[in-house]
Amino acid sequence: MSSPHYTIEPIGVVRSELTKLEESPMQGDEGAPEAWLELTPEAAPGLMGILPGDELIILTWLHLASRDVLQVHPRGDLKRPLTGVFTTRSPDRPNPIGLHYVLVLEVVDAQQKLRVAPLEAIDGTPIVDIKPMISMSASNR
Amino acid sequence: MSSPHYTIEPIGVVRSELTKLEESPMQGDEGAPEAWLELTPEAAPGLMGILPGDELIILTWLHLASRDVLQVHPRGDLKRPLTGVFTTRSPDRPNPIGLHYVLVLEVVDAQQKLRVAPLEAIDGTPIVDIKPMISMSASNR
Repeated sequence: MSSPHYTIEPIGVVRSELTKLEESPMQGDEGAPEAWLELTPEAAPGLMGILPGDELIILTWLHLASRDVLQVHPRGDLKRPLTGVFTTRSPDRPNPIGLHYVLVLEVVDAQQKLRVAPLEAIDGTPIVDIKPMISMSASNR
Repeated sequence: MSSPHYTIEPIGVVRSELTKLEESPMQGDEGAPEAWLELTPEAAPGLMGILPGDELIILTWLHLASRDVLQVHPRGDLKRPLTGVFTTRSPDRPNPIGLHYVLVLEVVDAQQKLRVAPLEAIDGTPIVDIKPMISMSASNR
């Protein structure tokens, strides 16, 4: 490709009881547990103002995904026809960014660490970005 | 930072009548126009199955953003107190990924090109990923 590339510098890491992909639900609302988001000291000032009860969008880098997959059987069900990855939530995609809607349960350690739920990302998943839910952001922030 | 870095390879580019940041609305629902999403030949097979009427999440790389900003006055309003970028939708943030909710209006050119609305990203903005809205994905895809 002729287009330029860009570098993701993770802002933190997911700490979770989930350690294996095969034990993780496919979506947060399918029984995913709580998790901790541990930010790097460099990124931690960006959390200022986040409070328990906030609803956030977490973007992660699904570091175990396959980046050369463009079509999949949705949810791994071979009875479903092949479909483009951009119409699915498959982790396998050219830029494997995970998108997770979570509720903030706790903010600790001088704002460097958040407890959130639900989160289906496994332990060690790099965190790329954190955003407020759009319904909050459009009018208030 | 000791954590590894990752490389974004854009899957396409935004083509829009918006060419200047200062003319762009801050959010899509604040009067943003239609735009074309032009995919690279490599990524285009990932669009298979996308249809007019689909609601998608577009992730972009806000290539003009400042990556060293961690706290901002929301919406650039100096009367508002400084707050962490992760509680705002500011484009300035360590990994400047834009998140846009759009409706698909048209699919053309053997699925390499989508017309969508609304999109506040300016012409030339790299596209990082495309996902179905979560309400569609959790149960159906």
